[in-house]
Amino acid sequence: MFASAELGHRINKEEYDAQVPALREALLEAQMELGEKRGFPLILVLAGLEGAGKGETLKILNEWMDPRFIETHALGPPSDEERERPPMWRYWRRLPPKGKIGIFLGSWYTQPILARTYERCGHADLDQAMDRVLRFERMLADEGALVLKVWLHLSKDSQRERFKSLESKKATRWRVKPEDWRQHEHYDTLRRAAEHALRQTSTADAPWLVVEGSDSRYRDLSVGKALLAALRQRLSAEPPAHSRRPAPPALPATNGLNLLRSLDLSKKKDKKEYEKDLENYQGQLNLLLRKKTFAQRSLILVFEGIDAAGKGGSIRRVTAALDPRWYHIIPIAAPSDEERAQPYLWRFWRHLPRHGRVMIFDRSWYGRVLVERVEKLCTVTDWMRAYGEINDFEEQLVRNGALVAKFFLTIDKDEQLRRFESRQKTGFKRFKITDEDWRNREKWDDYEQAVCDMVERTSSEITPWTLVEANDKRYARIKVLKTLCKRLKEDL
Amino acid sequence: MFASAELGHRINKEEYDAQVPALREALLEAQMELGEKRGFPLILVLAGLEGAGKGETLKILNEWMDPRFIETHALGPPSDEERERPPMWRYWRRLPPKGKIGIFLGSWYTQPILARTYERCGHADLDQAMDRVLRFERMLADEGALVLKVWLHLSKDSQRERFKSLESKKATRWRVKPEDWRQHEHYDTLRRAAEHALRQTSTADAPWLVVEGSDSRYRDLSVGKALLAALRQRLSAEPPAHSRRPAPPALPATNGLNLLRSLDLSKKKDKKEYEKDLENYQGQLNLLLRKKTFAQRSLILVFEGIDAAGKGGSIRRVTAALDPRWYHIIPIAAPSDEERAQPYLWRFWRHLPRHGRVMIFDRSWYGRVLVERVEKLCTVTDWMRAYGEINDFEEQLVRNGALVAKFFLTIDKDEQLRRFESRQKTGFKRFKITDEDWRNREKWDDYEQAVCDMVERTSSEITPWTLVEANDKRYARIKVLKTLCKRLKEDL
Repeated sequence: MFASAELGHRINKEEYDAQVPALREALLEAQMELGEKRGFPLILVLAGLEGAGKGETLKILNEWMDPRFIETHALGPPSDEERERPPMWRYWRRLPPKGKIGIFLGSWYTQPILARTYERCGHADLDQAMDRVLRFERMLADEGALVLKVWLHLSKDSQRERFKSLESKKATRWRVKPEDWRQHEHYDTLRRAAEHALRQTSTADAPWLVVEGSDSRYRDLSVGKALLAALRQRLSAEPPAHSRRPAPPALPATNGLNLLRSLDLSKKKDKKEYEKDLENYQGQLNLLLRKKTFAQRSLILVFEGIDAAGKGGSIRRVTAALDPRWYHIIPIAAPSDEERAQPYLWRFWRHLPRHGRVMIFDRSWYGRVLVERVEKLCTVTDWMRAYGEINDFEEQLVRNGALVAKFFLTIDKDEQLRRFESRQKTGFKRFKITDEDWRNREKWDDYEQAVCDMVERTSSEITPWTLVEANDKRYARIKVLKTLCKRLKEDL
Repeated sequence: MFASAELGHRINKEEYDAQVPALREALLEAQMELGEKRGFPLILVLAGLEGAGKGETLKILNEWMDPRFIETHALGPPSDEERERPPMWRYWRRLPPKGKIGIFLGSWYTQPILARTYERCGHADLDQAMDRVLRFERMLADEGALVLKVWLHLSKDSQRERFKSLESKKATRWRVKPEDWRQHEHYDTLRRAAEHALRQTSTADAPWLVVEGSDSRYRDLSVGKALLAALRQRLSAEPPAHSRRPAPPALPATNGLNLLRSLDLSKKKDKKEYEKDLENYQGQLNLLLRKKTFAQRSLILVFEGIDAAGKGGSIRRVTAALDPRWYHIIPIAAPSDEERAQPYLWRFWRHLPRHGRVMIFDRSWYGRVLVERVEKLCTVTDWMRAYGEINDFEEQLVRNGALVAKFFLTIDKDEQLRRFESRQKTGFKRFKITDEDWRNREKWDDYEQAVCDMVERTSSEITPWTLVEANDKRYARIKVLKTLCKRLKEDL
């Protein structure tokens, strides 16, 4: 992987001066076109060895292009707001919107590779970290981002020479830090760890470009040209073929039975029992969230359900047990234009709670595999890959200490009709029923299929779905509270 | 201010039970209408003495209304990201958008009043803090927000009884904290400080409602009814009269001379001198920002100018001197829909830099008194009050340790024409010229008047405007760099 970047590539001044003006103009023009069309973002990871010129390359790219539309992120240690979210949160919040260029120095590769180099983690941990990175970059590419990764390399000798040469001049002496020499001492292990990581993550979607960094002219020209080629290719390309893939065949329903239909919707709770249970579970829930252990955890609730199944009422029975200072409710409606300029999951990442907090999603990221699938608001490929992306997302939440509880509230067709009609009659409830609700009702079977597929593919031991029989509101609310208390008791 | 809230107001259970159902329904309906119309946000400050029931009131409001459209903010100590911005940043980032309700427990009143109570600051400091609050709330009201402030009060005796009663029961004992008793010991000074603060900040735009908190039924009903009355009044109101105020007469131009016309646009720099100066000042700038003192400061640059005056080129000569890891450039174009649902300055507050960073605004908050004024995109009152709001905003930046440098680049009409025509001919520059540029050119005199008024009203010793003669690009770039170096040298 690094052999050809240790050969001592050079470019002489004449050649460089001859090539730069045309390259600059072409880069600027490509960048302008990117900004005009706003079709996709360019994400550039600039990684590599100390002394190989990451900072200088960044500087030259900002000079060659219009820096007003480049967002540079050189990330140091995470802030306290970042430490309380999954590690990828700090990258998600800095993703460039469509039409812009985001350059990451200090990326999702930095910590895993350095941790392995200094033996703070084992080989398997690095592999696992790179697996997560692969899924992240795959998602970016699938969402349309152009992802480019540049590794600036130096041979061991070149690195030593570089440090010495910087140290020999008064003006540049400050640039060599003790950590740099420490890295040099670990050159061989770092090289091994990096090579392994790069090989594992060099994909067609997001390939690595390894560039020798000892000669700045060679380095800058190589990076500039690679960037230009990738931008030009993408700007003139057809939309990628996979977004036009046909729908995969669904498992045909041979006996009319499915997860939803197998629920016993006649389950009921009488008023007296309901009131006793409600008090009991709300009290339990309140006490559970006051536990000291919860201060290092968070709770994420997802409410999905058939229209008029009573999500709002169930949410209110949960929040009634909580101190309003602990929770936030995020009602998910149409995305804002800032959200539309980002990958699908971005609008959910931005709302992740800090420790000790409860975040309640009234509708959620599952919109993609429910309404967006049924109403054909996204391609088949988009919702098909969403299952994996969502599983990955939730796994990150859980690994960061969140408890994720997901509820799907079900009613039957007759009950929905009753509720729609009653809503239209009642004053303050008339806001709750729209033409869209009636239209959705016509696609009952499609929604049912989508729900079954969703539960099938995204219910796991760590983030199980709870299907809630909701023809009887009292029964549903108690089931939600009871399930939540049980999960928290097991977990805290 | 507090006398009538120490009388021992009570409401009996029958009366309470009789009134609550209608109040709930009316509140819910008003909230739905607010959400449907998205005309304004409701900002509720819930303040008051410990033991007076802030938490309980918050809870009952969340129960009575739909908690999905209420955002509750109970702010503890600031995070590290917040500590590096002006104190008001944490409130700005949490302002509810139009159509939503934001409730602040722990508001912009908490720290000033407590600091005065525990004598961490003097009387004049409290006054000054309240002056800032007045300006903030005035801005919110002018931007259309409905601002309500509730102070929950208790007499000294009631507070003691309340704490003792909570402590006497096992289930509620934990709710009384040592700080609460400490506050009780300082009851008289706190009461004095609060009364002073409330009297100073109870305005027609954002009045205080003082509610006695010893009887929860009286308290909840009072707050609920006040909220309903304010919401209903506003929902059925005409737009406020001041937004239709006529334009104030401008100072008539009697001799054709103004700030812009008095500039000597013939100033030039020859190429050789330019290159020497460029290297010199870029070097200085780089060194200045590496100073240790800058790690606790930040730099905010504002670039405004006549179309085609060369803002972009000047910005690039500045950034060329900087490490791309230090700066971000924010090009200001049309606001996003999330930005449009917030007060005008929100979109700038969200980009404020952390310490040690440089934020460069390519066009800025001055858009309101330039393009929005001339193109009549806002009312006269809106841009007239913007001068004061902007001065206030920049003062907060400076007080937080930012150095704010503002540049206005000027060319004359002939030079603009030459540049427009040349841009239309050059390949990669054709993106830079649009029909809008030609239209703006027709309003040259109006823009000129707006610029002169802007400089007149927003140039101060701490945030002066630098007018840059830009017919000669080289002269302009050096003037920008030189000014910047001078300011930094004086300041760091």
